[in-house]
Amino acid sequence: MHWFLLNAIFLPLALKFHTMSLLTVGTVAFDTIETPTGIADMVVGGSATYSSWAASYLVDPIRIVSIIGEDFPANELELLRNRGVDDKGIKVVQGGKSFYWSGRYHDNMISRDTLVTDLNVLADFDPVLDAEASQSDYVFLGNLTPDIQRSVIEQMTIKPKVIAMDTMNFWLDIALDSLMETIKLVDILIINDEEARQMSGEHSLVKASKFILARGPRYLVIKKGEHGALLFGDDQVFFAPGLPLLEVVDPTGAGDTFAGGFMGHIARTGDLSFENMRRAIIYGSVMASFCVQAFGVERLKNLNQNDIEERYEQFKHLVHFD
Amino acid sequence: MHWFLLNAIFLPLALKFHTMSLLTVGTVAFDTIETPTGIADMVVGGSATYSSWAASYLVDPIRIVSIIGEDFPANELELLRNRGVDDKGIKVVQGGKSFYWSGRYHDNMISRDTLVTDLNVLADFDPVLDAEASQSDYVFLGNLTPDIQRSVIEQMTIKPKVIAMDTMNFWLDIALDSLMETIKLVDILIINDEEARQMSGEHSLVKASKFILARGPRYLVIKKGEHGALLFGDDQVFFAPGLPLLEVVDPTGAGDTFAGGFMGHIARTGDLSFENMRRAIIYGSVMASFCVQAFGVERLKNLNQNDIEERYEQFKHLVHFD
Repeated sequence: MHWFLLNAIFLPLALKFHTMSLLTVGTVAFDTIETPTGIADMVVGGSATYSSWAASYLVDPIRIVSIIGEDFPANELELLRNRGVDDKGIKVVQGGKSFYWSGRYHDNMISRDTLVTDLNVLADFDPVLDAEASQSDYVFLGNLTPDIQRSVIEQMTIKPKVIAMDTMNFWLDIALDSLMETIKLVDILIINDEEARQMSGEHSLVKASKFILARGPRYLVIKKGEHGALLFGDDQVFFAPGLPLLEVVDPTGAGDTFAGGFMGHIARTGDLSFENMRRAIIYGSVMASFCVQAFGVERLKNLNQNDIEERYEQFKHLVHFD
Repeated sequence: MHWFLLNAIFLPLALKFHTMSLLTVGTVAFDTIETPTGIADMVVGGSATYSSWAASYLVDPIRIVSIIGEDFPANELELLRNRGVDDKGIKVVQGGKSFYWSGRYHDNMISRDTLVTDLNVLADFDPVLDAEASQSDYVFLGNLTPDIQRSVIEQMTIKPKVIAMDTMNFWLDIALDSLMETIKLVDILIINDEEARQMSGEHSLVKASKFILARGPRYLVIKKGEHGALLFGDDQVFFAPGLPLLEVVDPTGAGDTFAGGFMGHIARTGDLSFENMRRAIIYGSVMASFCVQAFGVERLKNLNQNDIEERYEQFKHLVHFD
């Protein structure tokens, strides 16, 4: 039989059975957000919530591992289940309260003051992966203590195709050794520019990338908020802009949404080439550009494939020259 | 005769006689620059110097209109003349001292403190255009008082194909009415993000662009330093990143260098379409990326077409995705 016919039969089968489960470990929480234009009181948030909403438009199934109190609204979990998100790994603590964060943004919509951080049930978060979760092909570790992130990696019973992680300056300050141990074990580190500078001691992001890539990850994504994102790896660099928007309503969760879109595209394609990472960065940027257009996850709840592909084309047009 | 043969004869002639003189009006000065890594004492600078050096790789002739004291080194003017820059319009004030600026950059290489500003001969700058300069096809007005910028425009005896101007927050603070009068008369306004926000009272750069484009210019270029540049106009938007560099030695003059490369490409092509403006923004970014790699104009003195085209390709690779 000709190779082309063989391909015609077996390639679709291979694609169908290309497992592309995405495990996301992070917070599912409440946020109260003040911006110069409004307040959103006790809306759902958290890194696992934002990243799952974003990834749900690109890949299926998604498994969340997280912890909530009994105050968390059942219908919000149902909305996620309706989008192919498996919430069996979200532990509900009876009598407990969900993680709560409150913050106020400055006029520039970038800097912000934290008003309240109530860890609540998050203080005792010790994620235990069931058999299914421990065999996930793609793993995104939202910002948590580096010890917890490492314990998740150690529970994986089959080596994942990609492990990506986020972190924050707080862990650089108080748990640097553990953080650097964890970074050794991941394929992709996703951090912001200030964190990259703090971690490396270098102001130049090119120098920072060399420092970090020498310490474990194959790829480094540096988020620059409204200024876009950089991807370093395989001796190449890619830059994706932020989409200039008429109005930014609420930047909360944009970074986690970016990570969700990014990982969603990687998981659905299974392609780890630098060329495909470029596309993944754009899908992340697309999802983040929707996220900031409303408070919380609201804008992420009612998208369709057309919205996403149209915005992908907008990014193309934004940077195109010949 | 076949149209193709006609074209073969007359198109080269048309290109040859496509006048593409660029007039640049601005400062020719001395700077003392302190950065975290070094000091450059009394190096040549000024908006007309930086923009002419950058444009000289793209277009010929360039005419400078400026003012200097008798302290300005003759060999620096000779270097510019050797690159096709006509310095007849630089008035030399006998016994006078050239404009002098001194500043110190912070660790981030973006914010800086001005240590000294000695206007010297610039205090009496009242540019008078000779017949040749007043017929220039392309005009770049570096940062000067908006009254002076307007007086240059009023001296043009043939309507230029393009007038572009820069300005700064200082004129927004103390000469807003005159500035808005001048903006009405230009085709392209080139300012930074904070100036766009101050001028429009809008934080969103998309809203700021609508405000500004309604007040005269056809195109608005918003410079964001290391974060790149945005181009608005013709109901479109284009974004060019800053090139991630291993080391930034001195950001002084990057904005003027950007403007020089931008105007140089527009002048050499005579094409005012949005598609060509995209290319012009990239040529501006290319020249600015060279500028910051050494103190003052040093890196701009020894480039060749190959360096420039190679870096243009680097920008293409940096943002490419499919």
